[in-house]
Amino acid sequence: MEERLKEQMAFILEADKSKQVFRQTYLSDGSRKENDAEHAWHLALMCALLAEYANEPIDLAKTMTMVLVHDLVEIDAGDTYAYDEAGNSTKRERELKAADRIFSLLPEDQAEKFRGLWEEFEEAETPEARFALSLDKIQPVLLNDATGGRAWEEHGVRMSQILGRNRKTPEGSQILWKYTEDLLEKNVSLGHIKDDREEQ
Amino acid sequence: MEERLKEQMAFILEADKSKQVFRQTYLSDGSRKENDAEHAWHLALMCALLAEYANEPIDLAKTMTMVLVHDLVEIDAGDTYAYDEAGNSTKRERELKAADRIFSLLPEDQAEKFRGLWEEFEEAETPEARFALSLDKIQPVLLNDATGGRAWEEHGVRMSQILGRNRKTPEGSQILWKYTEDLLEKNVSLGHIKDDREEQ
Repeated sequence: MEERLKEQMAFILEADKSKQVFRQTYLSDGSRKENDAEHAWHLALMCALLAEYANEPIDLAKTMTMVLVHDLVEIDAGDTYAYDEAGNSTKRERELKAADRIFSLLPEDQAEKFRGLWEEFEEAETPEARFALSLDKIQPVLLNDATGGRAWEEHGVRMSQILGRNRKTPEGSQILWKYTEDLLEKNVSLGHIKDDREEQ
Repeated sequence: MEERLKEQMAFILEADKSKQVFRQTYLSDGSRKENDAEHAWHLALMCALLAEYANEPIDLAKTMTMVLVHDLVEIDAGDTYAYDEAGNSTKRERELKAADRIFSLLPEDQAEKFRGLWEEFEEAETPEARFALSLDKIQPVLLNDATGGRAWEEHGVRMSQILGRNRKTPEGSQILWKYTEDLLEKNVSLGHIKDDREEQ
């Protein structure tokens, strides 16, 4: 028992480093960028509030746990910006190595369970993972919209890129995707997102 | 449906402000203080990992949701440091007013449910609330210990104060309290916490 609890506490302290992994998205007041721990908290809160919009019934505790741990690998692998093509080509390899190290801090049964949840999220083939993935894509749109599209403008993001990355978002929630699509279109009209759909 | 979703999204954006409410606890690397969103994420992760140590069986999704929202009132009421006596004398009143405003952004059924979870946490009379409250007390001890007792030293915190504030912590989890007590005693030996128990 004592060894088990020590391992769990070591993991809990290691996870603390998520608070220092910064994303490209700004907080809604634009004051600074968001970190992984804050992002995961926001997604878990969204799970609790918006589960009624999931396309399929979901296990809430499982989905919340999934979003709480989905970015822990970035403690080692760093945040890879959605539209960084070079970064994304090595992302999977870097994250697998990180998962090996980080989840193995836990007692064996929990290492397997929590790493399994991370893999499940990545594969997006269960109702919980599909919904979690949708929230993970929708939350930064809410924040970007709130800041007048700041991160989109800084990176010159194009609508075709956003839609490409969101191909699977409606699979988690048609209703939330519709809401998000409307926000995106509004930001296209306002010139915060470049509309390149005619060129595609 | 549309109005409902708009209210939920307004609440989700309002909740974002938790990322700017700072606590007295430092992150484990000592680089800066922790904010409420990060703290709540850490507690929810601890729920998922440590539920096996709860004195009584708990509903995991409920406990996680409770910790995710337990500090939202601080968006208006601010963080009241554990050992700030003047602040604590007005805390309840400030937080009730904040709860009135913040939870009422939600659709009526969810306003009632989520405000209810906050009240349940405050009252600490259910297995979920007792466990959540224990984690809320234990997590800053883990971080304070990791930073060599920095926040304790800055505030000249005394062991009798800590034990006083932790009277109910064992009611959530005897095992986790025992672990925490050992950490506290270690920090007393190291001089990071003033030992005033003989004087009491």
